[in-house]
Amino acid sequence: MIILGIDPGIGRVGYGLIEKNGSQLRPIAYGLIETPSIEVPERLKLIYSQVGEIIQTHYPDCLATERLLFTKNQTTAMDVAKALGCVLLSAAQNGIPHAEYSPPEVKQSVTGTGNAEKKQVQFMVTKLLGLQSTPRPDDIADALAIAITHALRVAPTIGR
Amino acid sequence: MIILGIDPGIGRVGYGLIEKNGSQLRPIAYGLIETPSIEVPERLKLIYSQVGEIIQTHYPDCLATERLLFTKNQTTAMDVAKALGCVLLSAAQNGIPHAEYSPPEVKQSVTGTGNAEKKQVQFMVTKLLGLQSTPRPDDIADALAIAITHALRVAPTIGR
Repeated sequence: MIILGIDPGIGRVGYGLIEKNGSQLRPIAYGLIETPSIEVPERLKLIYSQVGEIIQTHYPDCLATERLLFTKNQTTAMDVAKALGCVLLSAAQNGIPHAEYSPPEVKQSVTGTGNAEKKQVQFMVTKLLGLQSTPRPDDIADALAIAITHALRVAPTIGR
Repeated sequence: MIILGIDPGIGRVGYGLIEKNGSQLRPIAYGLIETPSIEVPERLKLIYSQVGEIIQTHYPDCLATERLLFTKNQTTAMDVAKALGCVLLSAAQNGIPHAEYSPPEVKQSVTGTGNAEKKQVQFMVTKLLGLQSTPRPDDIADALAIAITHALRVAPTIGR
């Protein structure tokens, strides 16, 4: 099964696709969608179109995202939620089911402890996927951590 | 010029289309998009598709929405922002510019006072548009109030 993890934002959207085969995890593709400092609706258009391309290139079996938390900056939080809305829309239009995990659930799944530090999560993402180095920026490693969380929480499968 | 006002939500989206001709305001169409209690991505799909239909039926010159405020219920606020994201996406894809007003700006424009009560806003919406009765539920009257706000704040135009 192929899992698409997404860490949404209005300026940067991290994405990570991994394949789960039995208990094996393998990275397929990961990267960053960046939008220029234009108006929010135009940025949403770019995010929606690029997420659609990723989905139609790799046909993931599931989209996994982290539950959004309120931050001190309310405008940022709202813009992140608008971007997530467009990501969820693209998934629904392509018939991809959606799973959501809280930040402690992601930390717990990837490191074994719900209050792990960011560095520890990144170290485990790199190790579990057999990568040479930690993907940068953090948005990408976060997206992969969310994909891994889903992979470790669903029943093992053989093939797709 | 035709203005589309939208009051977003995940369960109910109010919309109101008005035409501004010189200093005259005329209601064109208004109503409610309702979604059943299904998963959020599926609800977003319904909202996106119905907003797209409204835009492609009436070709508004502008979309106006109210600036989102944080409420006590954070999950609701996030879901409203996701819905708004899909509305803004549809506007951008159809080349419709977007204007945003704060709740006090809407109250000020429609009633002349920034701290007017809901009933006062609804009374003025009904009066300004020459309606027989106040559109129900509130989501529709709110959407019309936002459209009126934009109409009263842009320079007068003759025809479209």
